[in-house]
Amino acid sequence: MDAEIIAVGAELLTPYRQDTNSLYLTDKLNELGIEVRFKTIVGDDRGRLVAVLRSALSRSPLVIVTGGLGPTEDDVNRAAIAEALGRQLTEAPEIMDRIRHRFARLERPMPENNARQAFVPEGGEWLENQNGTAPGIWLEHDHVIFILLPGPPREMIPMFESQCIPRLAKLSSGERIRTRVLKIAGLPESEVDQRLAPLYKRYQNPATTILATAAGIEVHFRARGRNAEEAEALASDLADQAETALGEHVYSSRGESLEEVVGMYLVMKQKTLATAESCTGGMLGERLTRVPGSSSFYLGGVVCYNNELKTRLAGVSPATLEANGAVSKPVAQALAEGIRRRAGASVGVGITGIAGPSSGTEQKPVGLVFIALADERGTEIREFHFPGDRQRIRWLAAHSALEMLRRRLRGGPKI
Amino acid sequence: MDAEIIAVGAELLTPYRQDTNSLYLTDKLNELGIEVRFKTIVGDDRGRLVAVLRSALSRSPLVIVTGGLGPTEDDVNRAAIAEALGRQLTEAPEIMDRIRHRFARLERPMPENNARQAFVPEGGEWLENQNGTAPGIWLEHDHVIFILLPGPPREMIPMFESQCIPRLAKLSSGERIRTRVLKIAGLPESEVDQRLAPLYKRYQNPATTILATAAGIEVHFRARGRNAEEAEALASDLADQAETALGEHVYSSRGESLEEVVGMYLVMKQKTLATAESCTGGMLGERLTRVPGSSSFYLGGVVCYNNELKTRLAGVSPATLEANGAVSKPVAQALAEGIRRRAGASVGVGITGIAGPSSGTEQKPVGLVFIALADERGTEIREFHFPGDRQRIRWLAAHSALEMLRRRLRGGPKI
Repeated sequence: MDAEIIAVGAELLTPYRQDTNSLYLTDKLNELGIEVRFKTIVGDDRGRLVAVLRSALSRSPLVIVTGGLGPTEDDVNRAAIAEALGRQLTEAPEIMDRIRHRFARLERPMPENNARQAFVPEGGEWLENQNGTAPGIWLEHDHVIFILLPGPPREMIPMFESQCIPRLAKLSSGERIRTRVLKIAGLPESEVDQRLAPLYKRYQNPATTILATAAGIEVHFRARGRNAEEAEALASDLADQAETALGEHVYSSRGESLEEVVGMYLVMKQKTLATAESCTGGMLGERLTRVPGSSSFYLGGVVCYNNELKTRLAGVSPATLEANGAVSKPVAQALAEGIRRRAGASVGVGITGIAGPSSGTEQKPVGLVFIALADERGTEIREFHFPGDRQRIRWLAAHSALEMLRRRLRGGPKI
Repeated sequence: MDAEIIAVGAELLTPYRQDTNSLYLTDKLNELGIEVRFKTIVGDDRGRLVAVLRSALSRSPLVIVTGGLGPTEDDVNRAAIAEALGRQLTEAPEIMDRIRHRFARLERPMPENNARQAFVPEGGEWLENQNGTAPGIWLEHDHVIFILLPGPPREMIPMFESQCIPRLAKLSSGERIRTRVLKIAGLPESEVDQRLAPLYKRYQNPATTILATAAGIEVHFRARGRNAEEAEALASDLADQAETALGEHVYSSRGESLEEVVGMYLVMKQKTLATAESCTGGMLGERLTRVPGSSSFYLGGVVCYNNELKTRLAGVSPATLEANGAVSKPVAQALAEGIRRRAGASVGVGITGIAGPSSGTEQKPVGLVFIALADERGTEIREFHFPGDRQRIRWLAAHSALEMLRRRLRGGPKI
C-alpha cells in the first residue's frame, strides 16, 4: 500500500515553518510496510485544498491530511473533503457533547467556532482527540482511505498511535519495513561508499543509503520483509556485515549518540572526565550533560575563554601562554593536564582553537584547533584544521574531542 | 504572481531528510512579491513526476523544481519535464564542452552519466552551475515559467541568486513583500495576542502572525507594497507600534539573538561576564560564545556538575552545600558570587537545577532551577519551574539566565 501526506496551513508556506509531522508519520507508515510517495503542502484555502484532495484520490490508496482542523482555521479541511468527495457534512451529536463537556470542565464558555468541529462528512467516522477539541476523521471512499488529523503534534501523535496504527496494521498486507542505522566517524563519504559497495550491491533488499549529515556519515539499511521479524533480520544481517567492514569507525549501531557511547565506556571502565574548553565555550560540556545520568561520569570543567582564566581556573602557566600563544599544542596539553589534576578526574580534555570569523593569522588560521587528552597513560595532542563557519568549527572541535575520547577509551589500534 | 515549488528526491520521502531548499526559495520569492501556494515532494520516479508537473502547469504561473538533476539520479527531471510539456530533449554542445572542461581541470575521466546533463528540453535555456556539473534550466511554456535547479544548496543558491532573481524581478509586477520580526521574552502567546490584537486588527496589510517557536514568541509583520520601500515602511510602521505596546518584552527587532543583545549591552557598558553552570553543563557558555567577538565581554566560567567541583572551582562552601543541597537558592547565589570573584568579572551568573529525567523529589521536582546574577549592586536570585524534557529544561534555564542578564543590564523597571 502506498500513501501520500498532505499538510495544511498557511504558516507552512512561509520561510519560517516546516511540516515536521510528515517525518513522524513516514516513520510509522514505513514500519507498517507502507511507502510515502507524495507530500503536498497547501495553505488553508478551500479551492486549492479541494484540488489537492482530488489529485490524491486519483493516485493514492491512503491519504493522510494534517492540520486545518482547528476552530480558527475556518474549518477548511472538513468542508474541503466533503466537497472533494461530494458528501454532505452532518453534525455528530456525540462530538458536540464532548466539546461542550471539555469547555465546561475548563469552566470556559464554548466559542461559536468550536461547534463546527462537530461536523463530519457523511459516512466518515470521527477519531477522539485526547489533547484538544478537534476530532480526527477516518473516511473510506472508492477504495481510498482518508485520515484527517489535527496539526499540533501533541494532538496528532497520540491520535494516530492509538486509533490509526492498529487499523492500518490490520489492513496492510503484513509486509513490514525495518531500518538499521550505522553512524560513522573518521571516514569521508566516498571512502565509506568504497568499502561498502561490494556488500550492498549484492542486495536489492535491504536498500542501502549513505547520508552525509551535520553529525557525520550515516548508513541506512532499509529492509522489507513478509513480517517485522523477517525485515529486522534482513536489515541486521547486512548492517552487521557492514559494521565488520567499517571496523572501529562505526561508533553507533543502535541509534546511540557519540556522547552516549563515550559515557557508556567511562561508566564501564569506572572512569571520570573533566573538560577545559576555550573556543568551544562549553559546547563539549553541554553535549556530555545531554546524557541522562551524566553526573556518574562527567565531573565538570572550565570554560576559559580568556587567557587569565586559563591560568586561574585550569592552572596553565603564564609562561606557557606567553611562549606559545593561547592556540598551541602546549596550551592544549596544559589545559587537559591542569583540569584533570584540579578536578581529580581520570581523564582530562583540553580544547583551544580559532573559530573565527576574524582573528586568524597566516601561521594560525581560522579553523586551527588543538585537542589534548590526558589520562594515566600520558597525554595525546592532535592538531586539526576544520572547515566552515564559526559554529561549524566549534561543533567539529567538540565532536572530534568526543571521538578522540571514544577511541582512547575503547582501546585497540590507533587509526 | 503565484509560485509553486516541487522538490524531487527519494530521500525527501524518508523520515530522515527534509526539503529545506524551499525555505530559502520562499524567502527570496516573497521579497519579490511572489507568494508560494503549493509545495510538493516527490521521489525520482518519472511517471509520478510527470503527473506532478502537469498539475503544476494547470494551476501555477511559476514552477520551481529542485533536485533530480544529478548524474546518478537517472536524469529524471529533464526527461520528465520534456515529457510533461511534450518537448524533445536536445543536446546543448556548449554545456557538454563545459562539463568536459570541468573534468579535465580536475584531471578525472568524465563518467558516461554526466553526458546526460548536457540535454535540455527544446526551447529551454540552460543556467550555468558554478559549483557543480548539473546546469539548471529555464523554460517558458503556455505562459508558465519552469525553473529547474540542482538539489545541493551550494549549487542551487548561487544559481538562483545570480541567474533567476534578476529575471524574476523584471517579470514581477514591481510589488514587493517585506517582513519585520519582533522577538519577545517573558510573555505567553495569549498575552502577546491580547496586547497586539487592537493594533493588528486595524490592518489587512501588513498581515500579522504570532509564532510560538522553541526560542520563544515571535511576531511577524508581513507587508506588501508597490515597491520595496513602501513594503518596508508599512511593515516597520506596524512593528514599531507593536514594539511600543510590548515594551521591554521585545528583546530583538532586527533579527538579533538574545545572546547578541546581552553581548551588546555588556560591551556598551564595558562590563565582563563569567558563568558557573551546573544543570546546563556549559550551554550558557556555548550560547554566549556563538557571538563573534564574545571574548570582549565573556571571560569564561566553570561547569560544576559535581558537588566537589562547585567547591573547588567556584568556591561554594561545603557547609552551604550540606545545609541546602546543591539545588537551592544559597548555592545559586554562591555560584554567581564565587565565579564573579574568581574570574574577576563585573557580572557573575550561577545556575543550579534538576533537569531530570530522574532524581527529582517531592520537595525538589524535575524542572526546578535557581538562577542567580551577581554584580556590584548585589545578587538577584530567581526560582523557576520549567516544563518539558531534560533538554528543554536545560534550554529554558540558559535562555532565562540570558533574559535576566538582559533586563539587569538594560536597567529600567523590573517586570
